[in-house]
Amino acid sequence: MDFEEKTIKRTEIFDGHIFKVAVDDVELPNGLGQAKRELIFHRGAVSILTVTPNNKIVLVKQYRKAIEKISYEIPAGKLEVGENGSEKEAALRELEEETGYTGDLELLYEFYTAIGFCNEKIKLYLAKNLEKVPNPRPQDDDEVLELFELTLEECMDLVKSGDIEDAKTIIALQYYALHFGGKN
Amino acid sequence: MDFEEKTIKRTEIFDGHIFKVAVDDVELPNGLGQAKRELIFHRGAVSILTVTPNNKIVLVKQYRKAIEKISYEIPAGKLEVGENGSEKEAALRELEEETGYTGDLELLYEFYTAIGFCNEKIKLYLAKNLEKVPNPRPQDDDEVLELFELTLEECMDLVKSGDIEDAKTIIALQYYALHFGGKN
Repeated sequence: MDFEEKTIKRTEIFDGHIFKVAVDDVELPNGLGQAKRELIFHRGAVSILTVTPNNKIVLVKQYRKAIEKISYEIPAGKLEVGENGSEKEAALRELEEETGYTGDLELLYEFYTAIGFCNEKIKLYLAKNLEKVPNPRPQDDDEVLELFELTLEECMDLVKSGDIEDAKTIIALQYYALHFGGKN
Repeated sequence: MDFEEKTIKRTEIFDGHIFKVAVDDVELPNGLGQAKRELIFHRGAVSILTVTPNNKIVLVKQYRKAIEKISYEIPAGKLEVGENGSEKEAALRELEEETGYTGDLELLYEFYTAIGFCNEKIKLYLAKNLEKVPNPRPQDDDEVLELFELTLEECMDLVKSGDIEDAKTIIALQYYALHFGGKN
């Protein structure tokens, strides 16, 4: 059985700052004919499961225009142009900008967020041995953030109540629960 | 501190079968001025952590054009027009089409997959008490799928090796490990 879909034609729809949009005409495998694939191309992002010396998890409260709601998430940020291959530095930058912390980073997972139509890949790091940066880089000037430091139990309650409904944050919290926490 | 970003103007870019694309001009809170938000609107999807009577997890192998690679995922599917509010029926349909099974569904989580720019929300169900459907609905005619039934340990090995790199699948597997499995 063959799986690959060969591109016959790509139609570029949009070339933005955050993502590009294209529609591909593809040749299906196994003589199944042709189909169209609507696609989003994104540079990727980093996110950081940030654990303080007293085992609290750092969450960022922010407004998300796509869902028109407040969201609680682990610190994260898009890769800038040319940052492919230096994701760890990007993660340290985002950690400092969003939380004022620096620390030791360990790569936990890489995952595609919306694999059906989008190539955004997020690298998830664990940040430990946190220290406050004396004069941290400022937050992006179009972001309004508020920080919280919560126990794993408090975080898991926010998942259950639906206040945390961000996939990367749920992955990070589950990882923490599996490796460092009690059972939930 | 105020968080909300008010829409000044929405520019519609693309109206596809899978998603819509728009760019919003927004008024930032706290007198920070204006910004642009590139947005993807998606109807949402369902996914099913499918556990056989002998505690194997059902994974679907398929090609994903957005990443131009083979992917191993839990069964899933987009909501069709008008299916908002009947996600459980959509999940039963996808389960039957992709695996030939039906079963009892329990809602585990709802999460946004790419909250920074996209409103796609996935409902994750647990399917238990599986039974084979005698004459299951056929797969979509533009999908080529292969099924695997693997132990949790085998699945977690595929996460570690990078063969599973789909966010919804990682969330489902971690959930299973936390609630039914040993520690990983």
